[in-house]
Amino acid sequence: MGENLVLNMESKGYTVAVYNRTVEKVDNFVNGRGKGKNFIGARSLEELVASLERPRKVMMLVKAGKPVDDFIEKLIPLLEPGDIIIDGGNSHFPDTVRRTKYVESKGLLYIGTGVSGGEEGALKGPSMMPGGSPDAWPHVKKIFQDVAAKVDDGSPCCDWVGEDGAGHFVKMVHNGIEYGDMQIINEAYHLMKELLGMDAFEQHEVFKKWNTGLLDSYLIEITRDILAYKDEDGSPLVEKILDTAGQKGTGKWTAVTALDLGIPLTLIGESVFSRCLSAQKDLRVKASKILSGKEPAFKGDKQQFINDLEQAIYGAKIISYAQGYDLMMEAAKEYNWNLNYGGIALMWRGGCIIRSVFLGDIENAFRSNPNLENLLFDSFFKNAVESAQESWRRVCAAALENGIPVPALTSALCYFDGFRNGRLPANLLQAQRDYFGAHQYERTDKPRGEFFHTDWTGRGGSTASSTYQV
Amino acid sequence: MGENLVLNMESKGYTVAVYNRTVEKVDNFVNGRGKGKNFIGARSLEELVASLERPRKVMMLVKAGKPVDDFIEKLIPLLEPGDIIIDGGNSHFPDTVRRTKYVESKGLLYIGTGVSGGEEGALKGPSMMPGGSPDAWPHVKKIFQDVAAKVDDGSPCCDWVGEDGAGHFVKMVHNGIEYGDMQIINEAYHLMKELLGMDAFEQHEVFKKWNTGLLDSYLIEITRDILAYKDEDGSPLVEKILDTAGQKGTGKWTAVTALDLGIPLTLIGESVFSRCLSAQKDLRVKASKILSGKEPAFKGDKQQFINDLEQAIYGAKIISYAQGYDLMMEAAKEYNWNLNYGGIALMWRGGCIIRSVFLGDIENAFRSNPNLENLLFDSFFKNAVESAQESWRRVCAAALENGIPVPALTSALCYFDGFRNGRLPANLLQAQRDYFGAHQYERTDKPRGEFFHTDWTGRGGSTASSTYQV
Repeated sequence: MGENLVLNMESKGYTVAVYNRTVEKVDNFVNGRGKGKNFIGARSLEELVASLERPRKVMMLVKAGKPVDDFIEKLIPLLEPGDIIIDGGNSHFPDTVRRTKYVESKGLLYIGTGVSGGEEGALKGPSMMPGGSPDAWPHVKKIFQDVAAKVDDGSPCCDWVGEDGAGHFVKMVHNGIEYGDMQIINEAYHLMKELLGMDAFEQHEVFKKWNTGLLDSYLIEITRDILAYKDEDGSPLVEKILDTAGQKGTGKWTAVTALDLGIPLTLIGESVFSRCLSAQKDLRVKASKILSGKEPAFKGDKQQFINDLEQAIYGAKIISYAQGYDLMMEAAKEYNWNLNYGGIALMWRGGCIIRSVFLGDIENAFRSNPNLENLLFDSFFKNAVESAQESWRRVCAAALENGIPVPALTSALCYFDGFRNGRLPANLLQAQRDYFGAHQYERTDKPRGEFFHTDWTGRGGSTASSTYQV
Repeated sequence: MGENLVLNMESKGYTVAVYNRTVEKVDNFVNGRGKGKNFIGARSLEELVASLERPRKVMMLVKAGKPVDDFIEKLIPLLEPGDIIIDGGNSHFPDTVRRTKYVESKGLLYIGTGVSGGEEGALKGPSMMPGGSPDAWPHVKKIFQDVAAKVDDGSPCCDWVGEDGAGHFVKMVHNGIEYGDMQIINEAYHLMKELLGMDAFEQHEVFKKWNTGLLDSYLIEITRDILAYKDEDGSPLVEKILDTAGQKGTGKWTAVTALDLGIPLTLIGESVFSRCLSAQKDLRVKASKILSGKEPAFKGDKQQFINDLEQAIYGAKIISYAQGYDLMMEAAKEYNWNLNYGGIALMWRGGCIIRSVFLGDIENAFRSNPNLENLLFDSFFKNAVESAQESWRRVCAAALENGIPVPALTSALCYFDGFRNGRLPANLLQAQRDYFGAHQYERTDKPRGEFFHTDWTGRGGSTASSTYQV
């Protein structure tokens, strides 16, 4: 990743000094992929720092966690006021909040930047999401935007996100959304396979078509390619891959952050849990032998169902992004970030894993109304989700009736039905809490903030509890 | 809560010394509700400690968080080796893990105990879930079990849960399950109201009947009572309550812990998020005016649907408890707790908010097989969930087709369909991760632990990444 990113940087006309604690790697790189290019191989941190123009810009690409703190400690004594330390790894945003404060307290500037696009993106142009010390941005803006991916009109997929941990926060949400997009695609694949009985090659044709329409995106594109890929025996390789998803990272962080901030991020939450369930392979195999479920039996028109499925994916995807934006808006309030929501969509439009045509529509929504309160209030998305819903409902109902798990598609649909509902059943829930815990409730016929308690049983007296929090 | 608990304790023949930092409260209690009873009013912590027999048992009922640590600091210098500090509040289990170690390092013993049952339970017999220093248990066992609720055969709803934070952990899971049970009931109420057009009084009759069957439980019972409760104008009070659920506590902790431990706790997760969504009242009211959804139009037999609904609730409830037990089993591994799963069901059978006949069946399952790997592998629950599924599928499909949000019912059904599936679509997900991040995958035709990478595009070379974790 680091190698690819500096190769990209050098190709844009910059001279880059490179350092690795394993000096051999530096030599190999400078004499290998970096040969004949404008690289300075540094054999020590001192050498690295000495080779840089002021204000120095030192970018770390090390494993998130303690290695970042250790590196910062080593750099601080070598740097001078105004120099900039940049963390380009997958750091957890509260760490970046803390590090920005700390590094600034030493008279230096700090940037934590999300970088998305994998190995290939790093080389050809990643999506970059920088946040940290605002004073640092003018010094790195040109380099970052030169390196970053560009969309059709030439706009770079990189802009200033906000203060301290805002860049890594937005990268975290990006990754959470990535979990969601992947899960939705997985559910569509599962439905076509188990309900419609389509093999991978047939599905390849469907994804190929989808990639020219509403769903046009990198993840649909690679799914198209994966489904066509043949193993040595000519059969689809994907069917020989073990169905246990790994995950220890940013998707989980996103769900936990949503829980902490009280934002219903259901689709991503279900996507993370789906990975957990997939990882319980032995338990599932055992369960499959014990529990009798429903055998799928498709009734209806196959092509119609595939068309419905496209709409279901689209509807769920709209909900997922609306939830992600809801989370970012709440975080902006909580952490005092001034986030540019249209700019974030632009940063995600190219270079990164979730890049899509769809993100152009999100960018448009926030460009035309920077104060848009919710993505679903934008007329484009309102119309899109409304016209997707009939198909989406049919797909979910068919899946549940036929025993195919579609937690992300259904969770998103339930969210849509809850979100557009001015009256949810939580009145009963508040009555229950008041009944057993004297938690009090508000009334629809009284002003907000006025609380009532009822002695539902006639036995409890009028004590109201303010401490029993469940 | 504290007052009720000591009144309960005194009524079982114990003399109890009581202390509050507001001395007036002590006086008021001793001369009020405690008048003529065996209470010693202590006007200082020193007085409190001096009045106790050794080993002293000092139980705190203070707000979770810093107040508990502060209290411990005040107590330590006053106590002698072997004395026992007990935290009866709603502490987060990692705090109890930490405090047990700390208090033991001072030569004292520590207990963190979950207490469930609200105000009334505290007085009449709560469910108690103690964990901490095993050496402390014999000294408090009789008191705790005397105070606790009893089930029909006289067994107390209190037993030793396990080391350090195990008691508070199990209480946390209890509360998470409580969120789930409440959410499921809310969804049933919503369906009967919006899809079947039933008013609260009609629904009262349904819950009354349900409370004599499979669903017999405290929460069904209080729902029955709530639905019959008339406001001054004779209309159902519940309909005048604002639909915004509060929550800041243990349900969220349960979901976060599940994410941390990688256990798919989907029903509780959705329940927590549903509370979050209900709290976004203003946004929802706005959305209800902007977004057009589906107007519910029930087709079918109303009584049949109500019967289906009972089965749907039952099926979802089984899944919720299976997920909760899965979480406890994973935590036991992670934290080296030797949890008694049947004993936990017994502790929850009486006194607490989730008490039910159902928990007797769970107790039976673990009594007959203490090594039961999953609740759904028990023949009673296997048969129950299998015979519930047709009804459950019909209810969920109808809800989704009619635009009624049922996130807990559907999430549980999707989990059931995923859990009993030996082959989930995560093979595609692993292919996607390998495609964009060179994350590697395992194969179904090779041993576990052997990893493969494919150059899906023919462009990327054979580099495999071990660092890019998404």
